Amino acid sequence: MTFAEKYTARSRNVQSMLCVGLDSDIEKLPERFRLQDQPQFEFNKWIIDQTHDLVAAYKPNMAFYEARGAQGIAELQSTMEYLKEKYPDIATICDAKRADIGNTNTGYINAIFDQMSFDSITLHPYLGQEALQPFLDRSDKGCIILCRTSNPGAGEFQDLLIQDVPLWQTVAHAVATKWNAHKNCCLVVGATYPKEMAVIRKTVGDDMLFLVPGIGTQGGDVASVMKAGMNSKGEGLIINAARSINFSDNPRQAAQALRTELLTHSA
Amino acid sequence: MTFAEKYTARSRNVQSMLCVGLDSDIEKLPERFRLQDQPQFEFNKWIIDQTHDLVAAYKPNMAFYEARGAQGIAELQSTMEYLKEKYPDIATICDAKRADIGNTNTGYINAIFDQMSFDSITLHPYLGQEALQPFLDRSDKGCIILCRTSNPGAGEFQDLLIQDVPLWQTVAHAVATKWNAHKNCCLVVGATYPKEMAVIRKTVGDDMLFLVPGIGTQGGDVASVMKAGMNSKGEGLIINAARSINFSDNPRQAAQALRTELLTHSA
Repeated sequence: MTFAEKYTARSRNVQSMLCVGLDSDIEKLPERFRLQDQPQFEFNKWIIDQTHDLVAAYKPNMAFYEARGAQGIAELQSTMEYLKEKYPDIATICDAKRADIGNTNTGYINAIFDQMSFDSITLHPYLGQEALQPFLDRSDKGCIILCRTSNPGAGEFQDLLIQDVPLWQTVAHAVATKWNAHKNCCLVVGATYPKEMAVIRKTVGDDMLFLVPGIGTQGGDVASVMKAGMNSKGEGLIINAARSINFSDNPRQAAQALRTELLTHSA
Repeated sequence: MTFAEKYTARSRNVQSMLCVGLDSDIEKLPERFRLQDQPQFEFNKWIIDQTHDLVAAYKPNMAFYEARGAQGIAELQSTMEYLKEKYPDIATICDAKRADIGNTNTGYINAIFDQMSFDSITLHPYLGQEALQPFLDRSDKGCIILCRTSNPGAGEFQDLLIQDVPLWQTVAHAVATKWNAHKNCCLVVGATYPKEMAVIRKTVGDDMLFLVPGIGTQGGDVASVMKAGMNSKGEGLIINAARSINFSDNPRQAAQALRTELLTHSA
């Protein structure tokens, strides 16, 4: 089963394109978690138990775990074991934004795909396909390539024109036509750039999933994103929300509200 | 003291532009290390003790430590503590190839700059200056931006022309003229591309250090690299070698030979 097949099956099953970002910043955790031995793991367990039936995917960002050294890595590992045991149908994304040269990537592959059992990882495109081949060769795992990122300054290099085509579109085209031999590639396309998202959907066709950060705190608009990014089946998006769910007064309610909003706009 | 000042002082002091890459792949360690409780740390200690007086910098690649989960991270931390205590004048580079959006980078900054006390880190440019500002704001630490990487397929995106200027040169120009307000930026320029290196030196001027991977196993030629990359003072390069030193029969001898070769070509 490819990553896209796992995600799509889950998404259809629970009628949700929602991905909850497990960005468990230790500084922001409620005190009752900070007092425990494994604060990030306990917080993640709580968020997962509150939201599991509403989501198609979970996406921890590695930075929040690495911030705590070996202890943070151990708590992320525990989180993944918990998910694998209790909710194995939910797709998992390691937002690590990695990319090294050739076999050096094997270290990241061992850690993230094999030890932690993540279904997919986010990757920088700058080194090219040849460097990333060890990731791309894993047909059982998803390679989610940064294409158009959600940050305000994303355009500095991504908007540069190569024979009238912006770099983000050049990356999307290369990934769709060359990198995707195993049908395991996806793209990161920020919710804050719906116009670009519509062009990327046209460029890559129906089959490629987009991981979409930038809804919620970053200001992306749900209606515009769904219109711009969905494929002809009204699918194809992994809509991530982190802070607006994790650190709301009621994470379950926040996840429910966003799932409903996504459903409304995909009907 | 900036990263460049620390590196340059050390480089002049020991008459060496050599950086040893502590790429302590657990699979490749001699058996006498693999049998110990902290194999990567013990191996690093041995390499450091064998080579410290010959080098200006050490550069562990994170992938080889993350491959072992929490244990690998703990052994890298121990390595950094050992270096800080015994050889505090040697510059340290975390080859992590990170880059996330804005404040998410804080997690990497805490881990790599503050907890592990690295002097510098390697970074992907694709998200732009605005995303990387939390790294760039650390005037006490070096930000080493991937510009022209050493891998055979580096050109897929890096060679694309923007108004007749390749992307790698566009990145070099942006880093030199805009990103470098705190004089803490350096560039990664692969030894396998000496022609590009000469253009990058002209583009950014004398003051910027280049971290140069690709000598040794990857096939980069010392004489061409030194000619192409040195600044007008015969300095400005951090020449990395990893496998060709760490896994040679005699790491000290291999480091001595390369240091001498570098000296010969910088005279």
